[in-house]
Amino acid sequence: MVKSETKIRVRYGETDQMGYVYYGVYAQYYEVGRVEAMRLLGFSYKEIEQKGLLMPVIDFSISYKKPAYYDDEITVITFIREKPNGYRFNFEYECYNSSNELLNTGKVTLVMLEKTTNKMTKIPEWFENALNRFFLP
Amino acid sequence: MVKSETKIRVRYGETDQMGYVYYGVYAQYYEVGRVEAMRLLGFSYKEIEQKGLLMPVIDFSISYKKPAYYDDEITVITFIREKPNGYRFNFEYECYNSSNELLNTGKVTLVMLEKTTNKMTKIPEWFENALNRFFLP
Amino acid sequence: MVKSETKIRVRYGETDQMGYVYYGVYAQYYEVGRVEAMRLLGFSYKEIEQKGLLMPVIDFSISYKKPAYYDDEITVITFIREKPNGYRFNFEYECYNSSNELLNTGKVTLVMLEKTTNKMTKIPEWFENALNRFFLP
Amino acid sequence: MVKSETKIRVRYGETDQMGYVYYGVYAQYYEVGRVEAMRLLGFSYKEIEQKGLLMPVIDFSISYKKPAYYDDEITVITFIREKPNGYRFNFEYECYNSSNELLNTGKVTLVMLEKTTNKMTKIPEWFENALNRFFLP
Repeated sequence: MVKSETKIRVRYGETDQMGYVYYGVYAQYYEVGRVEAMRLLGFSYKEIEQKGLLMPVIDFSISYKKPAYYDDEITVITFIREKPNGYRFNFEYECYNSSNELLNTGKVTLVMLEKTTNKMTKIPEWFENALNRFFLP
Repeated sequence: MVKSETKIRVRYGETDQMGYVYYGVYAQYYEVGRVEAMRLLGFSYKEIEQKGLLMPVIDFSISYKKPAYYDDEITVITFIREKPNGYRFNFEYECYNSSNELLNTGKVTLVMLEKTTNKMTKIPEWFENALNRFFLP
Repeated sequence: MVKSETKIRVRYGETDQMGYVYYGVYAQYYEVGRVEAMRLLGFSYKEIEQKGLLMPVIDFSISYKKPAYYDDEITVITFIREKPNGYRFNFEYECYNSSNELLNTGKVTLVMLEKTTNKMTKIPEWFENALNRFFLP
Repeated sequence: MVKSETKIRVRYGETDQMGYVYYGVYAQYYEVGRVEAMRLLGFSYKEIEQKGLLMPVIDFSISYKKPAYYDDEITVITFIREKPNGYRFNFEYECYNSSNELLNTGKVTLVMLEKTTNKMTKIPEWFENALNRFFLP
């Protein structure tokens, strides 16, 4: 399993007139968590794109338990619970506030595309090797 | 059933470096669709808040089929397929581009809160009456 | 002079906890106004990029007179007051709410780059011709 | 003088299809810098609002020198160069990338309002005392 923790401070512009963090902002927080989970594997998402690959999101779901507020420090916990087999990468999420209250849980599924052909592609070997260090064979 | 159609032109700032509309932006597009669906019922979401009620999102899911691009005109179709009974309002979505290709489908669930107490509340009568015009008894 | 008017409905996610449209959102509204002003010239900004040109912003300033609120219909008036000579394009702005109150005024300056070289370039002839229809020689 | 430094990692959703950080995103980065500058004074902007005060932006200007890219670590340097006298607070900015290249410079002016009356108000004494520690009399 890959598990990473990232802290994000809520920005004023991320709140809405309800005083909550706008429900659409968590897509960005989850993206930040995802990128930090990948860094644990030994490379950045930026490098993936530099190698001619793209990883668009094909599924996103989130359940909101409690709102977050301006200036809160959010902990985004990102999990890759299973080694991606084939074409789909699943990232699972839990967000907590600084009182350790669960704010929301979610899941994001990505696929890998070749930038030049725009076709889906299997995980390359260097990516698979990086994952192998985190998953039992 | 309530069904509304809204057109949204993709803004430059809504794209990302992949050239796609960023996956988190659809939360805003769905919100716009939701607000227009409510206008069909005879009132604006703004009026709901002015009556001391809030409608936060508690669940959001979306499946991406095709990307949208800068300057595309997106049609957001919003459905209330069943009369909300009790506390949960389900909005379902389909987004199309101008070639009538399905871009994504999704679902958003909201609850109703009293602003002063921050407690969940049932749909008020005036809201129920508005819904009754769209659903068979 | 080129002058265009665009209507924009304020989205919930564009408000902040003050209940105002967040001050950074107007960059997007001004971009929408700019794109519509270009359409008056006979082409879209999308086509400009398809011809291998980019128009990044190099200066942006805005003075806020009154806040805008959720669900307001904003009128963005965009002016090209002088024919761009050389390399800089100036767009000037006025935003009004539906009570015709001035919300803010601003100015955005863009330059034109060749995408392949990333170097500044002069306005191409087809762009200049389009502008000539709006400015006395 | 008050001077603070804040690091911000560019998020994917903050880029646009040019591959640059969208020009409107810096309003958020400047807001983050401003909040950190205030923390140096001994209080958070959140506490200011809890005391019944609001600080809306009335002027914002920015000059872009170089673009920032996805995953860059941006250093936002925020200056309060002069003690605010009367009603206006000026924050000045410089943003650098990790190669220490100047990305942009800017200025944001805020005023202080009483939340209940929505009227402008002078800096309260506790705020003035906090500022006095940073400015010669």
